[in-house]
Amino acid sequence: MNFHTRKWIKPEDLNPNGTLFGGSLLKWIDEEAAIYAVIQLANSRVVTKYMSSINFVSSARQGDIIELGITATRFGKTSLTLHCVVRNKITHKNILTIDEIVFVNMGEDGRPAPHGKTEITYLRDRELEGPDSAT
Amino acid sequence: MNFHTRKWIKPEDLNPNGTLFGGSLLKWIDEEAAIYAVIQLANSRVVTKYMSSINFVSSARQGDIIELGITATRFGKTSLTLHCVVRNKITHKNILTIDEIVFVNMGEDGRPAPHGKTEITYLRDRELEGPDSAT
Amino acid sequence: MNFHTRKWIKPEDLNPNGTLFGGSLLKWIDEEAAIYAVIQLANSRVVTKYMSSINFVSSARQGDIIELGITATRFGKTSLTLHCVVRNKITHKNILTIDEIVFVNMGEDGRPAPHGKTEITYLRDRELEGPDSAT
Amino acid sequence: MNFHTRKWIKPEDLNPNGTLFGGSLLKWIDEEAAIYAVIQLANSRVVTKYMSSINFVSSARQGDIIELGITATRFGKTSLTLHCVVRNKITHKNILTIDEIVFVNMGEDGRPAPHGKTEITYLRDRELEGPDSAT
Amino acid sequence: MNFHTRKWIKPEDLNPNGTLFGGSLLKWIDEEAAIYAVIQLANSRVVTKYMSSINFVSSARQGDIIELGITATRFGKTSLTLHCVVRNKITHKNILTIDEIVFVNMGEDGRPAPHGKTEITYLRDRELEGPDSAT
Amino acid sequence: MNFHTRKWIKPEDLNPNGTLFGGSLLKWIDEEAAIYAVIQLANSRVVTKYMSSINFVSSARQGDIIELGITATRFGKTSLTLHCVVRNKITHKNILTIDEIVFVNMGEDGRPAPHGKTEITYLRDRELEGPDSAT
Repeated sequence: MNFHTRKWIKPEDLNPNGTLFGGSLLKWIDEEAAIYAVIQLANSRVVTKYMSSINFVSSARQGDIIELGITATRFGKTSLTLHCVVRNKITHKNILTIDEIVFVNMGEDGRPAPHGKTEITYLRDRELEGPDSAT
Repeated sequence: MNFHTRKWIKPEDLNPNGTLFGGSLLKWIDEEAAIYAVIQLANSRVVTKYMSSINFVSSARQGDIIELGITATRFGKTSLTLHCVVRNKITHKNILTIDEIVFVNMGEDGRPAPHGKTEITYLRDRELEGPDSAT
Repeated sequence: MNFHTRKWIKPEDLNPNGTLFGGSLLKWIDEEAAIYAVIQLANSRVVTKYMSSINFVSSARQGDIIELGITATRFGKTSLTLHCVVRNKITHKNILTIDEIVFVNMGEDGRPAPHGKTEITYLRDRELEGPDSAT
Repeated sequence: MNFHTRKWIKPEDLNPNGTLFGGSLLKWIDEEAAIYAVIQLANSRVVTKYMSSINFVSSARQGDIIELGITATRFGKTSLTLHCVVRNKITHKNILTIDEIVFVNMGEDGRPAPHGKTEITYLRDRELEGPDSAT
Repeated sequence: MNFHTRKWIKPEDLNPNGTLFGGSLLKWIDEEAAIYAVIQLANSRVVTKYMSSINFVSSARQGDIIELGITATRFGKTSLTLHCVVRNKITHKNILTIDEIVFVNMGEDGRPAPHGKTEITYLRDRELEGPDSAT
Repeated sequence: MNFHTRKWIKPEDLNPNGTLFGGSLLKWIDEEAAIYAVIQLANSRVVTKYMSSINFVSSARQGDIIELGITATRFGKTSLTLHCVVRNKITHKNILTIDEIVFVNMGEDGRPAPHGKTEITYLRDRELEGPDSAT
């Protein structure tokens, strides 16, 4: 799994207890998963259909940096199942894992449509840039 | 179950497809559930610990009004389990149901602490205001 | 009067003095009143026309929960007058009262249109759920 | 009266009808009035105490620019009364007027404190910059 | 140069270090410059094309008030070049200067279009209001 | 250069012309660059000191996905210089390039402090995860 989007926890992201507001985190996860689905399915008409249970293992504090990792685990006919991990880059702790986030591929008529994909698309131009996984 | 907080779907709440962004909805749910937990446990130090799986049954469009209903289903020693329903007041459709959202009651030392509650607290002052459940 | 929407005061809602920013509160009130008007008039094309004077009696702090109560007080031909109370559920203090918020019912042509309503619509499905006004 | 702060109406500022959301406008007014009070009273501890009634005369649409004008009208012992006008720079229409917005000067102990001001402070450095009131 | 829009630094504008988040400041500058361009070119279809280098000289803290000054420095055929200064009204320090922000005037077809302006338009109605540059 | 954070252009990110608001983009860039600096310098006390000029080459529309790439180009005694590229994953166009974003490493006393770093830190745990640069 590769980790892409990262967030710097700012005052606007805190709950009244001064730790990361869970709702803000869920919002970021849904956006990151949608981005992954749009790219894999090459279709911007995707909708979140299902999320499996979420265990909040640890939290984050102001100034912490968290990163979101997503990977595809199953290609259905009209659906795509993703696996998500969020971790804290400062404390190196896992924040939460969501085993399954299911997106549905929608056609122009607003109904589920076959997406024709069966495996993860690797973006070659990135690999060609070399192995520097700095930061 | 009583439905309290309501939201009017505005352009800032939409995903690029023009329907309610799931991430915004999850953020609202987490805040509403936290409010319910704070009031029931009479303690503002509560943290989201667990959410059971979420099935997105229908969505909402700009101008729709949605309402969030929460009720307590189990009082543990240091935890409180809630049940959540979100529905669309314009289309009268159910949007999603979350069977269990678990909050943990925290002490001043930041560790789980017994909350001493065993059942839902009914707020008498509201009942005394009469049966007008308008809108 | 029933109190519906509730807010948990988070860092993003504070003014530089660390108390609830009045402007955020006014924004919440306008949204809640619009929601009430949309439901009562069964029309999403409503616009705020007038607010009577506002006396800020007390404020709220981070972690407090406030609740907004709205009730209809007068049905004009094209207008609807609401009464609004905001109170702090933690300190049990009144925050402010607005005697009159007037909405105008708009037609599809963007002009004021008769709404045909003369009294508050009670939503029966809620009353049927029983007297449990928990939290 | 001089008009200072200006806003460009963006999608995030709209209500579901596609016009400027009144609540967003009220939030901007409260911030601008607070800024004026902080500068005049040379004290950042100011709180909104009262707003006189508000008549929404016209609205604004996406892409419009609005400007907010504030002027002091009365210096009390611990209070400052402001007058506010908001107008649309594109349509040249008045949007609303608020006759009185009253701020109270707070001391370090969080209680009203005399501010010692009796008239508007003119900022000379600005006048010295010449009469160019461009845009 | 006249200074128009002002901001009161609130918790939501801070970076995790507790000072003004540079990204928020850049967002405010882009909006204020766009407003100036829209007014000067009498066209709401303007796009940011270029910003010269930015030297962050000082910052701002919660409760500070900053003000943004913009002036036009060059009218091209389809472009407008602005100069921007941001300063802290509380500390009287300069925060940053941007020598050139270039906007392009767009036609209805989404392509650069001549704007026909050659100099700053002075808004007479403001000068007639007298020399009171209070606050 | 690796591209990490990605954004899905939603209605709240648009300017009144319906394209990506430049100010929102600048805010995202500043956050992503700060995250990169915090990780490389292993210090959350970093401040943006300088940005070289910015050429807005193309824009993005609602539903587009953009990605931000940052790499370190120079380690000074107390500073770190970054290079930034933003590109549109849907149109495959470059949006903008910023040659130099300079951060300063701050000590606990709020003054520039030597950071002791001289080259990019490669995060081994990521490389070990294999070459799968999917999406």
